[in-house]
Amino acid sequence: MAPVSNPCYRLISRPSGYPDPVKNFQYDTSGSIDPDTIDLKGGFLMQTQFLSVDPYMRGRMDEGTFDAWELGNVFMGYGISEVIRSEIPEFQEGDILYGIHRFEHYTIHEGWEAQTKKWRVIHNFENLPLSVYLGVAGMPGKTAYYGMKAIGQPKAGESIFVSTAAGVVGQTVCQLSKAWGLKVLGSTGSDDKVKFLQEDIHVDHAFNYKNSSTADEVKLFGGLDIFWDNVGGQILDIALANMKSHGRIIICGQIARYNGENPYGIKNVFSMVYNEVTMKGLYVNSYEEQYSEEFYSTVPKMIADGKMKYTEEVVVGLEHAGDLLVKVLKGQIMGKVVLQMWA
Amino acid sequence: MAPVSNPCYRLISRPSGYPDPVKNFQYDTSGSIDPDTIDLKGGFLMQTQFLSVDPYMRGRMDEGTFDAWELGNVFMGYGISEVIRSEIPEFQEGDILYGIHRFEHYTIHEGWEAQTKKWRVIHNFENLPLSVYLGVAGMPGKTAYYGMKAIGQPKAGESIFVSTAAGVVGQTVCQLSKAWGLKVLGSTGSDDKVKFLQEDIHVDHAFNYKNSSTADEVKLFGGLDIFWDNVGGQILDIALANMKSHGRIIICGQIARYNGENPYGIKNVFSMVYNEVTMKGLYVNSYEEQYSEEFYSTVPKMIADGKMKYTEEVVVGLEHAGDLLVKVLKGQIMGKVVLQMWA
Repeated sequence: MAPVSNPCYRLISRPSGYPDPVKNFQYDTSGSIDPDTIDLKGGFLMQTQFLSVDPYMRGRMDEGTFDAWELGNVFMGYGISEVIRSEIPEFQEGDILYGIHRFEHYTIHEGWEAQTKKWRVIHNFENLPLSVYLGVAGMPGKTAYYGMKAIGQPKAGESIFVSTAAGVVGQTVCQLSKAWGLKVLGSTGSDDKVKFLQEDIHVDHAFNYKNSSTADEVKLFGGLDIFWDNVGGQILDIALANMKSHGRIIICGQIARYNGENPYGIKNVFSMVYNEVTMKGLYVNSYEEQYSEEFYSTVPKMIADGKMKYTEEVVVGLEHAGDLLVKVLKGQIMGKVVLQMWA
Repeated sequence: MAPVSNPCYRLISRPSGYPDPVKNFQYDTSGSIDPDTIDLKGGFLMQTQFLSVDPYMRGRMDEGTFDAWELGNVFMGYGISEVIRSEIPEFQEGDILYGIHRFEHYTIHEGWEAQTKKWRVIHNFENLPLSVYLGVAGMPGKTAYYGMKAIGQPKAGESIFVSTAAGVVGQTVCQLSKAWGLKVLGSTGSDDKVKFLQEDIHVDHAFNYKNSSTADEVKLFGGLDIFWDNVGGQILDIALANMKSHGRIIICGQIARYNGENPYGIKNVFSMVYNEVTMKGLYVNSYEEQYSEEFYSTVPKMIADGKMKYTEEVVVGLEHAGDLLVKVLKGQIMGKVVLQMWA
């Protein structure tokens, strides 16, 4: 095989507010690789199949934040790839791997880089479309599952309010909650999403925060045992005012903050005292060891059995990474957003 | 014995901001009682010795808050009294009781009211001044002890930042923290209090927030494993920005909020996500069963051994309850404030 093009997608300047793909990012087609002959130096070569576009990536673009990306570097994110050649015993040609990928077509992991713990071989016993392993059966699904288990600690009969309920994390939180016997209120940003939540996901009640009052909807729903916070800001303040005794708040994303808006100040912390509310930040990777086997033996089966629905938008072509990220940040896509490398 | 006067102290109108004792409260001397002959109806009669004046009482004066007081009712709060006569086997004449008292000289607990679980007989094996059982060995001390055990979960070598460190809860948190091997930073509102914290309590560093920058002091001290929040508002926001990974925040009081000031909005909730910070509201009574025996076998002994210092101001006369509360709320007294019924 002759050398082939190995395009990649880079951060070249730091966005303020929503990214401008033309200004901040670069689809770089200058690289090439010969998959058959390139020296693996004791590692393995993988060919990217799917890449995940997630809101947290925006956070990596700010200077000085957690795991901030350097200017000029290739985007990093969850992906699914196929092993093309391997010089390590753990991975064989044809294995499907899940893990953090560079946003490029081919990647070599040489020598020490080939730490097998970084990658999980996806066996896909249920024969699901591979893209779900980036969504409800991937990091976002894990976020929902681990966060509910570790912080939410739900008991049947309790109530939960899920913000951005039609997003992929929210969808999973809602469906796990229903499966575990909770009463679920979901907020989302369009009437289509409300319909999806009520008719497909079967939450107890959903509303469009753009045309109804979140404060009124939450009050009407009744006190909250759990609040799943994907947004932060005012919705967190409303939830704080409506938590039941010993309520739990999972601070997951804070989308309201990602885009340089003047941050809303939370005023209802006081209510945590008498209600003995617990609020905890969720970082999904911390719970990988504790819950991942349980997760992979539960969620793919729920999907195969039709008990875990999902929506996804699969877009072909690495060059669309930036536009997709902006859509994700603006909430213009319902559910998971996946880049497929080629059709 | 002839009937004696039985004065009490009432809430007669709801304060906004700091209370105005003349307008909002009433020292009512119209009642009387004959301790020797009054019918106990199967209960017991106690004579109040000491009453505790605490910041949380201000919260009870607002309409619709947790356990809000009715207008016209007598103040309720922690107190120490002596049993004068008893018709129940659990309490004997001369027993010293700790529990929630009406702000009055004599109280009868009739029939079903005489639930012994509401009261603790103070044996005072260490022969301490009884007032300490309202302070470091009372509810404020329990607040510190239970909150640190249940939420703070300190490990030797960790760091803690204590707000209102010279208050009675703060003093106890600081000294328990030092006894448990923590590095302690205390903030307080006067240079005298700073001196007390550094020279008597031996915190690692203390500062007067009125003449130095809290943000700078916390930054200089280094990352925080634990933040003890007595204040809320801006200081909580500063702490949030300085928490270490897996930090714990105990939301205890929120003095900044008690007095009708425009509430400060917390902007740094986002930092809880990557740092996986836990923030939990503390309601001391919830931990009574779990920790009270441990507390009473630990803290009075620490006091007797000189390992738990305290400051208190004892004022004689129930009529001073309102003025004292205002002083407490304004932070004008260092440590515990106790009303003694007579000299």
